[in-house]
Amino acid sequence: MRAALALAARGLGNTWPNPSVGCVIVKGGAVVGRGWTAPGGRPHAETEALKRAGDAARGATAYVTLEPCCHWGRTPPCTDALVAAGVARVVVALRDPDPRVDGAGLERLQAGGVAVTVGVLEAEARMLNAGFITRLEEGRPLVTLKLATTLDGRIATRTGESQWITGSAARRAAHALRGRHDAVLVGSGTALADDPDLSCRIPGFAPVPTVRVVADARLRMLPTARMFQGRGPVWIATRAGHPDAPREALQAAGAEIIEVPPAGHGPGLDVAALLRALAARGLTRVLAEGGAALAAGLLRAGLVDRLAWFHAPAIMGADGRPAADALPLEVLAAMPRYRRVGLAPLGPDLLSEFVSEGSGAA
Amino acid sequence: MRAALALAARGLGNTWPNPSVGCVIVKGGAVVGRGWTAPGGRPHAETEALKRAGDAARGATAYVTLEPCCHWGRTPPCTDALVAAGVARVVVALRDPDPRVDGAGLERLQAGGVAVTVGVLEAEARMLNAGFITRLEEGRPLVTLKLATTLDGRIATRTGESQWITGSAARRAAHALRGRHDAVLVGSGTALADDPDLSCRIPGFAPVPTVRVVADARLRMLPTARMFQGRGPVWIATRAGHPDAPREALQAAGAEIIEVPPAGHGPGLDVAALLRALAARGLTRVLAEGGAALAAGLLRAGLVDRLAWFHAPAIMGADGRPAADALPLEVLAAMPRYRRVGLAPLGPDLLSEFVSEGSGAA
Repeated sequence: MRAALALAARGLGNTWPNPSVGCVIVKGGAVVGRGWTAPGGRPHAETEALKRAGDAARGATAYVTLEPCCHWGRTPPCTDALVAAGVARVVVALRDPDPRVDGAGLERLQAGGVAVTVGVLEAEARMLNAGFITRLEEGRPLVTLKLATTLDGRIATRTGESQWITGSAARRAAHALRGRHDAVLVGSGTALADDPDLSCRIPGFAPVPTVRVVADARLRMLPTARMFQGRGPVWIATRAGHPDAPREALQAAGAEIIEVPPAGHGPGLDVAALLRALAARGLTRVLAEGGAALAAGLLRAGLVDRLAWFHAPAIMGADGRPAADALPLEVLAAMPRYRRVGLAPLGPDLLSEFVSEGSGAA
Repeated sequence: MRAALALAARGLGNTWPNPSVGCVIVKGGAVVGRGWTAPGGRPHAETEALKRAGDAARGATAYVTLEPCCHWGRTPPCTDALVAAGVARVVVALRDPDPRVDGAGLERLQAGGVAVTVGVLEAEARMLNAGFITRLEEGRPLVTLKLATTLDGRIATRTGESQWITGSAARRAAHALRGRHDAVLVGSGTALADDPDLSCRIPGFAPVPTVRVVADARLRMLPTARMFQGRGPVWIATRAGHPDAPREALQAAGAEIIEVPPAGHGPGLDVAALLRALAARGLTRVLAEGGAALAAGLLRAGLVDRLAWFHAPAIMGADGRPAADALPLEVLAAMPRYRRVGLAPLGPDLLSEFVSEGSGAA
């Protein structure tokens, strides 16, 4: 199952709105087939693994990271394919919370004479499928907040200089993070100040281009932004009621405009509504990359499921720009806390990865 | 030699103004004697190891982390003791930069018929003796800046709440850090706000009580401070010219008053002069524990040799109190950078240890 989970991890960022699944077929102690969800979400992992196993699938055991589908979507049900191939046993990590499946896949396998085990490495599978689960259960994508700061949490000097706080190994890891998410989200302040491309620039790493989303309440983005030259869609979330001319200029440059209600207070957008709009378009995993206003907005709303924090071994002092604006925080007990799940030295820098303490799905 | 260095590390914080030395005597492949500098700086490591080895020292090899002394101080020269014991060979990690020794110890051993090797694990010995070396070469103690912050570098909420950002394992490690330093240094703002004891509260860990030093330009400290109930001396560094009454009240409570010139600008003290005054009193290793003004003053003057940074897995936002005041920093290239030399998960928190990029001695 660990091998199947590792295969499934390859698809992260490339299978939305579908989950990324891994499948390993074992017979007589040997692996006879392996598969994972292909870029774009199909073919499914089981189909791929069965194709590779061929006749060897008969009497074999299939390890699948998520309950096989039993409904006709854009592909025939995987349950039927497993039964037809004569697989003797299916071991499933996680029952699929999709109401179209949700145990029905397991039943269909059993009805077809296949022995079924469920719950093997379930916690790991839940971590892996967190984006898919969050979209189903909360109607929003999983949000990873990525920050690259000094030890004292500064993202730029007071004059805005930020290239480069972290080194090349950290920047490569940040690009890989983009590739493992369906979309990158930034505020318009960051988009205007840095004019970033925001695509994953590791060759071959993101077969499905990462969507670039800008939270731009005031519709300040320009059709000349570098983002429009980059690979993949650009979505601009903004308030209703802007004049037609700038909207149309952005659309002509390739942007999709998404209307989102304004925040209850402050100049920004309602971040919860923004995330719902992104989930409605199929996104399951969103990487929030900046800046301090967007980070604070997401934290304030309790919408940061994971953190990817790059710390450079340097100190900037209090006139540097903060990682997150004021939440504000009245008491220490109200402070958002996380649990460390990963730690990776990257040259001089350090990447620490966290999941929210509160959120079970994350 | 690694064993000798490990023995020497036991004495850190307890041997000032002397270095902490380790000695292992080996004969026929077996360890026949071990010693390290005793609390207070004497007996010396070699004397202790020779005493344990007894007659077995004859013809043996002694591994010593620092060149043995050849001068009469409060103890007779270790060189003579090694020769008298009939040691055949002495392996030294680091030549002693003390002008009273500086190679003369090695010569005296050779004159006594002892084979001498020098430079084994020299870099490690230099790290270990950094406090002793910095005092000799720069006339100031080694400075370790210790900070306990959120991921975004905040040490307290805007209302000053800071207990507890880090967990109990991190707090124990912070007490151990105190024990491995000769003194703890805080600004008077921290001393007044938190009324800390600042002693190392790990039983048996610091046989020589840690000196508590307060940088208190305005002489705001009160004789009722908890620090005066704690274990070990309290030194208060302040400007000249304060009225007699508050000085005498603090002295009556047990404080030693140290006069230091004011900073060139700002309300504080000249931190370089403060450190020189501490070195003149024998301190070799100082742990600076806060707050943001002291941290910035030391960083600004380029006087932070090491960092011990505890990061709690939490985010406070921009209204939290910063780890270090504005340096200020004009360009990113001027930012103080460090090199990571240690990384230790402590429960939910993470301790990262760094040495200055610029300072060879550190």
